[in-house]
Amino acid sequence: MSQRRLLAISGSLRRASTNSALLRAVRQLAPAEITVEVYGELALLPPFNPDLELPYPPAVERLRRQLNAADGVLLASPEYAHGISGVLKNSLDWLVGCEAWVGKPVALLNAAPRAHHALEALAEVLRTMSARLVVEAALAVPLLGSGLDEDGIVGHPEIAPRLRAMLLTFARAIGEGEEVAPEG
Amino acid sequence: MSQRRLLAISGSLRRASTNSALLRAVRQLAPAEITVEVYGELALLPPFNPDLELPYPPAVERLRRQLNAADGVLLASPEYAHGISGVLKNSLDWLVGCEAWVGKPVALLNAAPRAHHALEALAEVLRTMSARLVVEAALAVPLLGSGLDEDGIVGHPEIAPRLRAMLLTFARAIGEGEEVAPEG
Repeated sequence: MSQRRLLAISGSLRRASTNSALLRAVRQLAPAEITVEVYGELALLPPFNPDLELPYPPAVERLRRQLNAADGVLLASPEYAHGISGVLKNSLDWLVGCEAWVGKPVALLNAAPRAHHALEALAEVLRTMSARLVVEAALAVPLLGSGLDEDGIVGHPEIAPRLRAMLLTFARAIGEGEEVAPEG
Repeated sequence: MSQRRLLAISGSLRRASTNSALLRAVRQLAPAEITVEVYGELALLPPFNPDLELPYPPAVERLRRQLNAADGVLLASPEYAHGISGVLKNSLDWLVGCEAWVGKPVALLNAAPRAHHALEALAEVLRTMSARLVVEAALAVPLLGSGLDEDGIVGHPEIAPRLRAMLLTFARAIGEGEEVAPEG
């Protein structure tokens, strides 16, 4: 398998965020052939304003470069009042029309499986931006209320293997997408 | 009819935003007994972070006071990639759990009637925050692509009367809500 670079974006800025802990755990668990970069500049993105698009603000420019360089994207986000977190949507608003989304494989991770409204809204937004949702790599892990932090997730006898398997499934799907791309 | 104060929030930061123009036009068109305050600090709200909630950042504190003082809320927002604009959702994320939302009358204005995903997502978020959606005051006005600015809307022979009628319907619904409140 070729080396894969994944960009992991958490929709929460909370220091003790379960979603952020999940993505950092995924980074730790990744096999050597998969590099997971956890996005860390969500709070640096200015409020989306189409008047400020050219040139892009520096943090937006960096995000666009990171998206462009990634073979796939992992997303994990809290649901606020049954909606996508505003900070995550703000980052996506800066990327509407970005060519790098076209066909980009995305895996949605859900740390609170009872919540579904925001995840469905997020899937609709990503489809609208022409991303490729890899459903076989989507994963629901009941972490909310578990008290597990990053290391707790990495050391968990059931969750850690599921996350490793998700990464391999995702990497395989990325490869398959590349094979069919010339025909599609 | 008692004097009514409405807080009008546009989900766009674009200078030439149709949604913002619509709300400023509504402010101009309001009869003497209705005051429309157009919210102007969306870009000043920091990215929502639950760790920063107490004390609230100054712009958040001001928004909470404005919401609290309003008899009703008018919302008009663009749809970005079939989703609520991130900046608008960010403002709502700061207000999740805010008591002032409970039963607060809200009218949703839609300046691009072909779009519906974001409006439905917004309605779900507002219902989740216990706001009262006044459906008889919801209004779809096909402004997108019309080239109408604030004064163009105010002077429009068909649109202006519809906006005035919307305001009166909304104000009446606010009054009716107050009458039934002690029983509800």
